[in-house]
Amino acid sequence: MLESWTDEAAKSALIEFAARAVDSVAPEELVAVFDNDGTLWCEKPAYIQLDFLVRRIAEQVAVEPALAAEQPYTAAASGDLGWFGEAVTKHYNGDDSDLKLLAGAVLSANATITTEEHAARVNAFFADAKHPTLGRAYTACGYAPMVELLRYLESLGFTNYIVSGGGRDFMRPVTTAMYGVPPERVIGSSVGLIYHNGELLTTAQPEILNDGPVKPVGIWERVGRRPILAVGNSNGDIEMLQYAVAGPGPSLAMLVCHDDKMREFAYTAGAEKAVAHAEQSGWTRASMRDDWKTVFGD
Amino acid sequence: MLESWTDEAAKSALIEFAARAVDSVAPEELVAVFDNDGTLWCEKPAYIQLDFLVRRIAEQVAVEPALAAEQPYTAAASGDLGWFGEAVTKHYNGDDSDLKLLAGAVLSANATITTEEHAARVNAFFADAKHPTLGRAYTACGYAPMVELLRYLESLGFTNYIVSGGGRDFMRPVTTAMYGVPPERVIGSSVGLIYHNGELLTTAQPEILNDGPVKPVGIWERVGRRPILAVGNSNGDIEMLQYAVAGPGPSLAMLVCHDDKMREFAYTAGAEKAVAHAEQSGWTRASMRDDWKTVFGD
Repeated sequence: MLESWTDEAAKSALIEFAARAVDSVAPEELVAVFDNDGTLWCEKPAYIQLDFLVRRIAEQVAVEPALAAEQPYTAAASGDLGWFGEAVTKHYNGDDSDLKLLAGAVLSANATITTEEHAARVNAFFADAKHPTLGRAYTACGYAPMVELLRYLESLGFTNYIVSGGGRDFMRPVTTAMYGVPPERVIGSSVGLIYHNGELLTTAQPEILNDGPVKPVGIWERVGRRPILAVGNSNGDIEMLQYAVAGPGPSLAMLVCHDDKMREFAYTAGAEKAVAHAEQSGWTRASMRDDWKTVFGD
Repeated sequence: MLESWTDEAAKSALIEFAARAVDSVAPEELVAVFDNDGTLWCEKPAYIQLDFLVRRIAEQVAVEPALAAEQPYTAAASGDLGWFGEAVTKHYNGDDSDLKLLAGAVLSANATITTEEHAARVNAFFADAKHPTLGRAYTACGYAPMVELLRYLESLGFTNYIVSGGGRDFMRPVTTAMYGVPPERVIGSSVGLIYHNGELLTTAQPEILNDGPVKPVGIWERVGRRPILAVGNSNGDIEMLQYAVAGPGPSLAMLVCHDDKMREFAYTAGAEKAVAHAEQSGWTRASMRDDWKTVFGD
């Protein structure tokens, strides 16, 4: 087990924690939670879901060309992905104007369709789309060592949940095949749904942004227990990791560090506070470069 | 199996549906949802949760006697349960004044404690409280034929969820022992929670009222699939039952009818629309009097 992990501190910490947990914790309390973007799959150069949304927005312009007069439709129609990155950069610099335009378009991009139709759009995207620089299908952008970890924990009786800021209904169609995590164990962000005549319809209303302190709340809502293992990679995972290690029994918080420019990407932007918390609190650090023999497993 | 069910139409419908489902549906799609109040446990003469809340409100008055000057604290402190029933009756007659007082008190009754402390209060209640007229512990107020049905479905590979208007965190501490349904499969109403320093704290803010058209939304949020069997007993279950039978494969909607004055209670108030829908749509009717050999199983 854990063959893709080098025999360093991260692997030892996982094995020692798991052994202690199995020895001392009731089986139903063996709950592990995993962030998705940057923890289970690649999040660079942009969130996979952003590619899904930009393609959808471009489709909307194709149907209704007048939309192209305004952002983000202009950028999506012309394939100007830089605009989207800029919108986020401007947001971090205190200018929310483009992000607001983007949020409105993103929320309405898949509105007023049934949950089944939404799943079909997601499946069509994943059947077709490829990572822009890694030259592989997005469905092959999951981290092999993390998938191994999921299987390892499962073999010991753990129940694994995904707890992501990404869209709940964007992840669900692929998590079973990619990670062995079924829809009922995928916790994510969502728009509001409305019941109508036997169907559930998407709306353009934001409902849950499952990030930061909202993650522990979502875990309680969906699991009804405190997890004892939490794995994340960014500032939005801090509270989830704190929550996991604040319980009375054995627990482990792990932070995946993107320090592998050769095989994936090297970045700390968006993880600065999490790294500081990890050092301060003694959280386990998983270095892609040093702890993983392989990243994508092929 | 289903020994507590008489050999009438309801039992046959359940067995025939289950056989068809197991033959033609993928195992992960074998999802069944059950309302709780009036479907899995007794809801008369008052919701069990109301007893929990009134006792808590009386405790608050004991600590802070000045509260007794106002309703519902006056009624709770003096054991005047009639006031609470009246508040609901007035609401149905278009006067919401008392219900608003009640709602405020109910929402704040267990505010600003951790989820663990809340569970401890619920456990203390169930360890002590008895049904006011049936002379049995509330934990013995589950319907034996329904518990049999849960086990029967489980033996065929179904996954059972509770989908109730009752409080999610009020039900969770007892559903495993009473029904064999663990916390992660209990969907209910909730107040907002706030993450603080490794703990989740209750608030007095209403979050989800899991009733009527909200039930299918909650099912999708938590399960990510359409159920194929839904069992309810009241107007608040109509949309959940419609949702279950609107899918393409085999499905069953069942309405429990309280027509057994001798062994439980006989009432249709709050179920009038559901009964009309059942007749119109050919939903299966489970009569407590005619379809159940026993109600509480002892």
